[in-house]
Amino acid sequence: MEHHEKWMRLALQLARSAEGQTSPNPLVGAVVVKDGRLIGMGAHLRAGTPHAEVHALDMAGPEAHGSTLYVTLEPCNHYGRTPPCTEKVITSGVKTVVIGSKDPDPRVAGSGIRRLQEAGVEVVLGVLEAECLRLNEAYFHHRRTGRPFVTLKTASTLDGKIATHTGHSRWVTGEAARAEVHRLRHIHDAIMVGVGTVLADKPRLTTRLPRGGHNPIRVVIDSRLRLPSDTPVTDVTEAPTWVFCTDERDPDKEEQLRAKGVKIVSTGPGPRVDLHRVMRVLGEHGVLSILVEGGGTLNAALLRERLVDKVIAFVAPKLLGGQNSPTSVEGEERETMAEAIHLRDLEVQRFGEDLCVIGYPVFPS
Amino acid sequence: MEHHEKWMRLALQLARSAEGQTSPNPLVGAVVVKDGRLIGMGAHLRAGTPHAEVHALDMAGPEAHGSTLYVTLEPCNHYGRTPPCTEKVITSGVKTVVIGSKDPDPRVAGSGIRRLQEAGVEVVLGVLEAECLRLNEAYFHHRRTGRPFVTLKTASTLDGKIATHTGHSRWVTGEAARAEVHRLRHIHDAIMVGVGTVLADKPRLTTRLPRGGHNPIRVVIDSRLRLPSDTPVTDVTEAPTWVFCTDERDPDKEEQLRAKGVKIVSTGPGPRVDLHRVMRVLGEHGVLSILVEGGGTLNAALLRERLVDKVIAFVAPKLLGGQNSPTSVEGEERETMAEAIHLRDLEVQRFGEDLCVIGYPVFPS
Amino acid sequence: MEHHEKWMRLALQLARSAEGQTSPNPLVGAVVVKDGRLIGMGAHLRAGTPHAEVHALDMAGPEAHGSTLYVTLEPCNHYGRTPPCTEKVITSGVKTVVIGSKDPDPRVAGSGIRRLQEAGVEVVLGVLEAECLRLNEAYFHHRRTGRPFVTLKTASTLDGKIATHTGHSRWVTGEAARAEVHRLRHIHDAIMVGVGTVLADKPRLTTRLPRGGHNPIRVVIDSRLRLPSDTPVTDVTEAPTWVFCTDERDPDKEEQLRAKGVKIVSTGPGPRVDLHRVMRVLGEHGVLSILVEGGGTLNAALLRERLVDKVIAFVAPKLLGGQNSPTSVEGEERETMAEAIHLRDLEVQRFGEDLCVIGYPVFPS
Amino acid sequence: MEHHEKWMRLALQLARSAEGQTSPNPLVGAVVVKDGRLIGMGAHLRAGTPHAEVHALDMAGPEAHGSTLYVTLEPCNHYGRTPPCTEKVITSGVKTVVIGSKDPDPRVAGSGIRRLQEAGVEVVLGVLEAECLRLNEAYFHHRRTGRPFVTLKTASTLDGKIATHTGHSRWVTGEAARAEVHRLRHIHDAIMVGVGTVLADKPRLTTRLPRGGHNPIRVVIDSRLRLPSDTPVTDVTEAPTWVFCTDERDPDKEEQLRAKGVKIVSTGPGPRVDLHRVMRVLGEHGVLSILVEGGGTLNAALLRERLVDKVIAFVAPKLLGGQNSPTSVEGEERETMAEAIHLRDLEVQRFGEDLCVIGYPVFPS
Ligand SMILES: [Zn+2]
Ligand SMILES: [Zn+2]
Ligand SMILES: [Zn+2]
Ligand SMILES: [Zn+2]
Repeated sequence: MEHHEKWMRLALQLARSAEGQTSPNPLVGAVVVKDGRLIGMGAHLRAGTPHAEVHALDMAGPEAHGSTLYVTLEPCNHYGRTPPCTEKVITSGVKTVVIGSKDPDPRVAGSGIRRLQEAGVEVVLGVLEAECLRLNEAYFHHRRTGRPFVTLKTASTLDGKIATHTGHSRWVTGEAARAEVHRLRHIHDAIMVGVGTVLADKPRLTTRLPRGGHNPIRVVIDSRLRLPSDTPVTDVTEAPTWVFCTDERDPDKEEQLRAKGVKIVSTGPGPRVDLHRVMRVLGEHGVLSILVEGGGTLNAALLRERLVDKVIAFVAPKLLGGQNSPTSVEGEERETMAEAIHLRDLEVQRFGEDLCVIGYPVFPS
Repeated sequence: MEHHEKWMRLALQLARSAEGQTSPNPLVGAVVVKDGRLIGMGAHLRAGTPHAEVHALDMAGPEAHGSTLYVTLEPCNHYGRTPPCTEKVITSGVKTVVIGSKDPDPRVAGSGIRRLQEAGVEVVLGVLEAECLRLNEAYFHHRRTGRPFVTLKTASTLDGKIATHTGHSRWVTGEAARAEVHRLRHIHDAIMVGVGTVLADKPRLTTRLPRGGHNPIRVVIDSRLRLPSDTPVTDVTEAPTWVFCTDERDPDKEEQLRAKGVKIVSTGPGPRVDLHRVMRVLGEHGVLSILVEGGGTLNAALLRERLVDKVIAFVAPKLLGGQNSPTSVEGEERETMAEAIHLRDLEVQRFGEDLCVIGYPVFPS
Repeated sequence: MEHHEKWMRLALQLARSAEGQTSPNPLVGAVVVKDGRLIGMGAHLRAGTPHAEVHALDMAGPEAHGSTLYVTLEPCNHYGRTPPCTEKVITSGVKTVVIGSKDPDPRVAGSGIRRLQEAGVEVVLGVLEAECLRLNEAYFHHRRTGRPFVTLKTASTLDGKIATHTGHSRWVTGEAARAEVHRLRHIHDAIMVGVGTVLADKPRLTTRLPRGGHNPIRVVIDSRLRLPSDTPVTDVTEAPTWVFCTDERDPDKEEQLRAKGVKIVSTGPGPRVDLHRVMRVLGEHGVLSILVEGGGTLNAALLRERLVDKVIAFVAPKLLGGQNSPTSVEGEERETMAEAIHLRDLEVQRFGEDLCVIGYPVFPS
Repeated sequence: MEHHEKWMRLALQLARSAEGQTSPNPLVGAVVVKDGRLIGMGAHLRAGTPHAEVHALDMAGPEAHGSTLYVTLEPCNHYGRTPPCTEKVITSGVKTVVIGSKDPDPRVAGSGIRRLQEAGVEVVLGVLEAECLRLNEAYFHHRRTGRPFVTLKTASTLDGKIATHTGHSRWVTGEAARAEVHRLRHIHDAIMVGVGTVLADKPRLTTRLPRGGHNPIRVVIDSRLRLPSDTPVTDVTEAPTWVFCTDERDPDKEEQLRAKGVKIVSTGPGPRVDLHRVMRVLGEHGVLSILVEGGGTLNAALLRERLVDKVIAFVAPKLLGGQNSPTSVEGEERETMAEAIHLRDLEVQRFGEDLCVIGYPVFPS
């Protein structure tokens, strides 16, 4: 098993190297080995381009005959934009396929493995499975639930403030933490904010990495369409913008925004946007992952609806104070501390002077 | 210098071993060495008992003649409850005195060093000075300013909440962090809270360590004397309780509280307690260090008055939410993030799942 | 520069993944990036197959136009078994080439860079240069000197013994250290031993990794051809065997060994094998790296001739004793400790209970 | 138990602070605690001066009544140079005694504990016992076996050489490792060498620390008294010198050496010195610990007789070579590697560039 892990670890590294550029497809890495020698490697780099297995088997060429293929995810078995990888594997003469994680996609669902086995290919399952599952936590969540994987990102002072009472929030955290946020934007399909944040900060909500980076879809939750038509996020030349509202929206504003290319979706009668509906719609449109950079009201609403799958909380070593300074989670009150949402599988990182606490929420039962 | 550091390090360890029990005196450790051999050691253990040098020289006995004395703080040179240590050093025949930090006490102020030198004792200064100064940061602060060294302790969730809107705060942090708070109480002369905290929590504010521990003075800031006379902190059999109020206090309540042994001090006309006055009074009464466990209002007031010298912020990996849930610093608003108070010399510790961020405040100029 | 390092680091990982399988070619990794997005990657996997740049540009396809190519080694510029990579880069429309290390090969010698620049491709040099140079320390050494890079591997007890006086040496080190030796064999072109070791241990000198592994050429230093024709290393079906002898060799034995497929090379009149000659011959035949697993006599001879470029010394936490037990370096005596050979750039690893000390010899001047 | 460990840890630190100066007595530390407050502390500093408990209880004074005494070793219960500590404990009114390790001394043997219990003192046993036992591993070994605890110290190159063939050994290791050797001398009662080492190096075998240090007894193993009478170790003004020989000694030389104050002991008929006898004699004269800095012959003899209790092997990252260069363990041969002596409880330290491997020998059965 140990030598399997060595090569699967390489496949994982290859997969990770394409982080932020494969959505709506998962990150996948593949490695072809023969007689203890690496003969091909590849990763899925972008939707619509070859799968990892294809790159790796192409690199291997005729030598692939009799080899072992390591792949972080079960090979696909359906005719999509590309022919199924299972056929490529079989015709290449691969002897053994070592798989990190099964594909939760109902169109695959173990059928890839069955197809390979029927064709006489030996299949080894579950090598470095936990890492392979975590690699695509958003993808797997989307396949299982139809909804995007929602990561709540907050940035607050030690006393919990995300801005002054006037909404001034530049900057809570330092440069290194802010660079990390741009990296996070790069690897998410969408960013979600409340209209309040747009009104207060006039953000562009784009990814600013040293060299380019992927711009996620900008999603604004705005029940009555208070979004001004001349604020930076309405410029859809940089990235698409979706605004979710209710039937109580202002029809004139809707017209203006649509004219600018902004997509408007009402989730129903109101008065509040139906967040479950939002997630279903985004999931149906192939949004696998959302980074919520909302204010405290939106954050609270998502937590109340249990629509948060992961939390990334930056904490700056500062005290701001102020009775009316907004905090990262507002909304309704809880009566006792026991009702707080815990984070599990905690990880603590440091970006410059700032702390970053990462975990998965456990909602009180 | 290296061998000096070795022995001074031992003296520092001895000093630290008496943490929490020497106030209003500083922590001091002393070591006597002759021919590379340890012949005496001691620490100051409690006000009114012998100084570290006396213990160490007593242990050394006649062998002290010709020895080197290491002491973390300049020996005293005045007649107090005990005769001056300088005389003891001189009559013991000590050849060299190695000193970690000068005494900022105006009654000493280098006179200990001068006395030793005049008597022909060689003096070496500044060995491990930074550690020796930090060891007694409260003591040195008190000697320099006449005011106690104020440590603001907070315990909040990741979203900055210290309690639910009803005031429920049991428990924000886990067991390990709470044990650390009891250790902090043990090493402080006083705990300070606002009356609101007393009304909400009915705390005893005593030190509960596995085996006893020192109970600090309980200081309540309560401008109008809203403190009930039957709440646990008014039971002065466990520890003294001081209440600072204004002239707007309720005279009947004052009577009741005094009858229970609570000390009442008005800081003047009001409406708010004059916190600078509070610190002066406490400093004059020999309180060297205060642990503030107040609510957000008291914390904000102390920060506004720049009366906070150190911050110890526990952060629990939880989200509570609630627009009206109190945070650790409330009070007046700041207009921009640039007005936030930074922490310098940051240290991050972990207690169970909880984080603990320690630093010294840098007030914006 | 930081984002250059990120992608060069990936190229280095790709290069390393082919460790042990590219000789006589160097390890090379390549990555193609466009708009901050990875579009191609590759490594050189085996002599005679495409270079890293070709794999990476093939994976990128037409998208390569306007991209940045990261490559750990200067692209080749001569027509060999494959057309020059510089032409592939230019015709692909690559805009910028970021290079880790220049090629010391006289057939390239900066000409690759010049060719690219003349064709209007921007060239950035020296990103992660130290890592890129170390990656191919054997290759660079061979190009510069014409001789293989010689790594002396020893395995001894704490008291320096490599075997008992009877030659018994199974096992000095534990399992983990022995597995590491097989990994080292895998990444070297040749293993060198003295005939004494072959007579004592009858080793096969092959690589036994969990799954196959590359078998290096077995080189035996044997001045008079004492090598028995029926010992395992004379079975050339597993790996080639070269024996270096002198003109004093036994001609009958030469006949027998040649008949078995063993290659016999005399370095001249004798009595001792001319080790400089051995290295020249091996270098000319494309041997880039040698792992010496010799006894103390061969090790001493190589060190005396300053033909050792790196030392990897395993030390087992054992004491064997024995006045006549062999040690890892024997040979002639030195008069003073100052004549000892120091190791620089020291690295200490742990394999199970065994230590492994790695360094580069500094010969006394 | 946790609070017991906190105070016992302090007692251990106090004990260690007297390392190298208490022989033939053990290192002992004591701490007196009352109501969670440290009221006394002490260590045994030198044979003939008060025991740790006495110092600690003296510092505590009348407050000791009702206190808890922490002591790393069972209090003594016999009248020696000082009255028994048990009586001091009882008359001081100590309520509880927490003991780290029982005293193996047959004159104590649990009688201290029994005496305390009979007098109504509560006794808690075994707090941090492993550390307390290791603190005095030499002392306990001596009490159990009557023999000194023997530590074999070696300093060799990576190829096992301790000197050139001419005996030149200055310096195998660097400055930091050599300073550590002086620290080791300081904490041992005796240094043992073979006469060959004295002849080759003419060492003084004294402790050279920055400020003084304890000079151990110098023990020379010299069967026929080849020791010159004018070599530095015969100058007994710095430290005593004992020479162990056989009845085959040269009587004239014996006369000369005795005249210089060197102590001569014959262990019997010869031809070799009876090392068991040597250890018994030294043990009877109160030597608890020996640091062997012998050559390979003496080291081998001690290992053969299984008279080595601990090994401290310095390894310098150098290669010296030389078929006749001496190694750290010579003597008789072993037939197979399985007969080597392993080290258990391995610890690896670094002194400058040199490694230091520490462990306890496991002799093959
Ligand atoms: Zn596929
Ligand atoms: Zn004093
Ligand atoms: Zn090329
Ligand atoms: Zn005693």
